[in-house]
Amino acid sequence: MRRTRFDDWDCPIARVTDLMGDWWTPLVLRECFYGRRRYDEFVEALGIPRPVLSARLARLVDEGLLEKQQYEEHPPRWEYRLTDKGRASWDVLAAMWRYGMDWQWTDDDLPLALVDRETGAEVVPVVVDEATGERLDVRKVRLTLR
Amino acid sequence: MRRTRFDDWDCPIARVTDLMGDWWTPLVLRECFYGRRRYDEFVEALGIPRPVLSARLARLVDEGLLEKQQYEEHPPRWEYRLTDKGRASWDVLAAMWRYGMDWQWTDDDLPLALVDRETGAEVVPVVVDEATGERLDVRKVRLTLR
Repeated sequence: MRRTRFDDWDCPIARVTDLMGDWWTPLVLRECFYGRRRYDEFVEALGIPRPVLSARLARLVDEGLLEKQQYEEHPPRWEYRLTDKGRASWDVLAAMWRYGMDWQWTDDDLPLALVDRETGAEVVPVVVDEATGERLDVRKVRLTLR
Repeated sequence: MRRTRFDDWDCPIARVTDLMGDWWTPLVLRECFYGRRRYDEFVEALGIPRPVLSARLARLVDEGLLEKQQYEEHPPRWEYRLTDKGRASWDVLAAMWRYGMDWQWTDDDLPLALVDRETGAEVVPVVVDEATGERLDVRKVRLTLR
């Protein structure tokens, strides 16, 4: 049975679910953000099965989040670089980071931190309303037609 | 083949991928945020296959994002209400909303908007660094051990 696609739904959440919701995809992107570019680097960092990695990378290239560039001719080898569209998807992962920090650890034992490369200060992502700078409260929001 | 679980990885992104990364789950949560609580409401709103919906709701209850409450005794019927943990996951969907707005529509034809219930002003989610209020740039962030 072919699974339902959401890429033509009139809802940004649905389309991004379709784009980033394949199993493993957020972790492949995570590795891109941490600087990995080469096939074997992804395999080594994630322990991801090769057929799955190939499918995920191909889709991310198709969707314009990654660009495939040849870095060796004999044998032919490619690396995968983030495009602007790919880099922007960091926001989604950053929101996941924050939610995981707050809700998927029972105490302060999260071993990792995001820090600013220059200042070393911890970076803690938060989702706010662009107009007010305040955190979102879903109870105060409703959906409307434009 | 059992798919790889990420729920014990030492990374918030991995754990949230595991939690919210089942196909359909972000859309089930979306419907919760829009006020749906009853099984048949989810089916009608999403066209989701019933066995899939049952599995997704059960997992969200297990993970503490939803609470199951009986609203009818004969026949027994339950509704699903967001907990604080469930409500907080809106941030992840809001980041997806923003990314979809920016990158999955080719022009300004997105038919929907999020608005503030009281003021009617459009709510545009953005992910920022909590300390500075500035948008994240993944190139300026690195990962470190605490």
